[in-house]
Amino acid sequence: MNDIRRRITSRALVAGDKLPSVRGCAARLGVSPSTVAEAYDVLAAEGIILARRGAGFFVAAKPQPFAVSETGPQLAREVDPLWVARQSLDAGTDAPKPGCGWLPEDWMPVAALRRAMRALAAAPDAVLTEYGSSKGAAGLRRHISRLLFDQGLACPPDQVLLTGSGSQALDLVCRMLLRPGDTVLVDDPCYFNFQALLRAHQIRIVGVPYTPEGPDLDRFEAALGKHRPRLYLTNSALHNPTGATISAPVAHRVLALAAQHDLIIVEDDIFAAFEPDLSPRLATLDGLERVVRTGSFSKTLSASLRCGYIAARGDWIEALTDLQVAVNFSGPSPMVAELLHAVLTDGSCRKHLEALRNRLSRCRAETQSQLADLGIRPWVQPRGGFYLWCELPGGADAAAIARAALQEGLVLAPGNVFSVSQSMTPFMRFNVSQMQDRSCGRILGRLLEAATRRPPGGQGEP
Amino acid sequence: MNDIRRRITSRALVAGDKLPSVRGCAARLGVSPSTVAEAYDVLAAEGIILARRGAGFFVAAKPQPFAVSETGPQLAREVDPLWVARQSLDAGTDAPKPGCGWLPEDWMPVAALRRAMRALAAAPDAVLTEYGSSKGAAGLRRHISRLLFDQGLACPPDQVLLTGSGSQALDLVCRMLLRPGDTVLVDDPCYFNFQALLRAHQIRIVGVPYTPEGPDLDRFEAALGKHRPRLYLTNSALHNPTGATISAPVAHRVLALAAQHDLIIVEDDIFAAFEPDLSPRLATLDGLERVVRTGSFSKTLSASLRCGYIAARGDWIEALTDLQVAVNFSGPSPMVAELLHAVLTDGSCRKHLEALRNRLSRCRAETQSQLADLGIRPWVQPRGGFYLWCELPGGADAAAIARAALQEGLVLAPGNVFSVSQSMTPFMRFNVSQMQDRSCGRILGRLLEAATRRPPGGQGEP
Repeated sequence: MNDIRRRITSRALVAGDKLPSVRGCAARLGVSPSTVAEAYDVLAAEGIILARRGAGFFVAAKPQPFAVSETGPQLAREVDPLWVARQSLDAGTDAPKPGCGWLPEDWMPVAALRRAMRALAAAPDAVLTEYGSSKGAAGLRRHISRLLFDQGLACPPDQVLLTGSGSQALDLVCRMLLRPGDTVLVDDPCYFNFQALLRAHQIRIVGVPYTPEGPDLDRFEAALGKHRPRLYLTNSALHNPTGATISAPVAHRVLALAAQHDLIIVEDDIFAAFEPDLSPRLATLDGLERVVRTGSFSKTLSASLRCGYIAARGDWIEALTDLQVAVNFSGPSPMVAELLHAVLTDGSCRKHLEALRNRLSRCRAETQSQLADLGIRPWVQPRGGFYLWCELPGGADAAAIARAALQEGLVLAPGNVFSVSQSMTPFMRFNVSQMQDRSCGRILGRLLEAATRRPPGGQGEP
Repeated sequence: MNDIRRRITSRALVAGDKLPSVRGCAARLGVSPSTVAEAYDVLAAEGIILARRGAGFFVAAKPQPFAVSETGPQLAREVDPLWVARQSLDAGTDAPKPGCGWLPEDWMPVAALRRAMRALAAAPDAVLTEYGSSKGAAGLRRHISRLLFDQGLACPPDQVLLTGSGSQALDLVCRMLLRPGDTVLVDDPCYFNFQALLRAHQIRIVGVPYTPEGPDLDRFEAALGKHRPRLYLTNSALHNPTGATISAPVAHRVLALAAQHDLIIVEDDIFAAFEPDLSPRLATLDGLERVVRTGSFSKTLSASLRCGYIAARGDWIEALTDLQVAVNFSGPSPMVAELLHAVLTDGSCRKHLEALRNRLSRCRAETQSQLADLGIRPWVQPRGGFYLWCELPGGADAAAIARAALQEGLVLAPGNVFSVSQSMTPFMRFNVSQMQDRSCGRILGRLLEAATRRPPGGQGEP
């Protein structure tokens, strides 16, 4: 292979030249013909040479014509609800990302993942090659059913649908229940991608102010009366971005209002495993009557294993399964579902989750003290998870700071990307697991100081 | 573990009972405490026992309350465009499935897949745990760009977006370009899931009769004038279900008409690798001006590795990337993209594809002779691929036969699921790779005979 590569680079062989026959080359090099054939196949797979059936191998007609320009951070991009997602995804693995929504790679159960992969390499052919069943791997659905049962939610495996991701679970539910022009309630602030998703569905989005105990009930009730929304989309436990948790009385009242106004609730429970103890859940109180629960394992086990799930009423699950076949043919990669199931049933899983919770507690305390030094204080004290929702001092504009930080390779999550009302200008969401690099605090402090300093040439001393 | 399980089964331990302490149990059994802790963790992961933080392990409060009723074939289901998909997905791996749209598991490159998995088990942490970049793994995008280039289509890696599947590629394009109430042209017959997908988008579907050379040009032009469709969705090479291939003059004329009527074309090129030689492509002739090309590797490498791609204009790829973040956060599982890339660049890949083509040629000839014995003849002689689109003798109703065959565990694909006009009653699509089991022919022959026999008590002898 090296010989051929060298001869092409030095132009001893040029485009269209026929390569020596496999047999001839083998004789010259004193190796077996199969060794040469294998080397040619690798070069062909790399696109350096071409196989023409019956005629032999030739130097590829043209080199690959495109420079590889990889997508990096998009500095000029408007700070909209998609801003944080694309910046965090494309920032590269080395950049500090206090704005992103996941844990660092070395927090994940890498040893269990590797074990599961090695075991899967010996799985039956069908697991490695076939589409799997329309609702997704039975073993993982049974396991999810059991996890829900342990949380007090009776949901048989047949009422669990696996999806391509947690986001896709929400998307499928929206596709089933919503039509363009419908109105949906979200929390203000809420997970930025709820807004991006609902916009893709051409939905009218109405925000309800979120309090440390859940949605503001007066405003929630007023919005139901005024806007007749079809759906309320929320996280109940360890709410994104605030880290708050709905209280039992508020949860009860939200459900009563929902019943009164024929409102469906979608509870995205993606942070459930980070709770120190079980908090009230709308799906559990309601028993999947008018609440749909969604989730995934991207935050706790691996985001590289794309798989989400929907737990809902049986007739809705049937409709969602048809819909998923129509738009995606099947759900997650069956291999991915197998790997997740293997990691979930690995004896190390419980300890991994406990270790995550403990490490996050320590990290949260550290980050909080680091931020306090900069005059940044959390809006609420979260019970768990990796977010701190904070107000910047001096009314600083978080979007301007985030834009400046990106120039220095730091991805931040400014408040207004989470806010339908755009009223969160001085707020910022910090991921405490991504603040370990001391440079984060330094850069942030410097930008904050520059932002709150009186503009030069301004009104001068009082 | 067996000891605990036995004691629970025999009700020596009941719900809520505390298990012996790890240390006590280890001493009694003469093993190390870590061995016992590991066993308890496995039982906890199985849901048989519960760990209460600080208090030890307890027998789980209630056994799993649900009988596991797995989804099997749905016998009562209406024969609609989703019928074949759900029946084939849920039939189980042992049922003969001449109606399904994939190759048997032992045709797939299982050894290369296992090699790739073992290699991936040693990949860097980030590959195993992170979301990856917004457009998907750079290596696979570069490889797809090169495959397209080899087919004469200049499309740089930045104009390739990886998606969760081939179907999802089509779905994303529809989401970008269509609004409810828009009109889309499809071939009559066409892949049944095109109809299911477009219905999910609330699109008006107009069918254009398909000829052995491509769409009927007169009817195509008339439909453009009459219905002002936004999009034409088709497969050009080895068309599904007919196996026909568009001719160069028809392709040229379709593009000219599209330009004249400002029509966008989506070319789903999922069967490209099965062609014996390169046929005309709309995307190649057009150069991605008004044609979007989609594809996947589910048919040739593995359907368990869910991943598709879109090749399109740069500005469209940017919009599609935003849209994919909004509805799915990212694309395929990064692990899956890595595995696919490894199999594609494995030296064995070219030989695998060549072997598939040869085996399909033999299979096609065999199946054709088997079907000829039953009086079933193909509508066109396909150049490659695994479909034979056939007319049943005596005007038999293919849907009735498919429904009866399902009772005997045989999944068939009746003509009208592919037909917008519902004019394909006596047609059936056969997957030649799934006809190796001789029972297929026997069952089919028997059902066909019953269907075409004069009904008893009918008009009697003439």
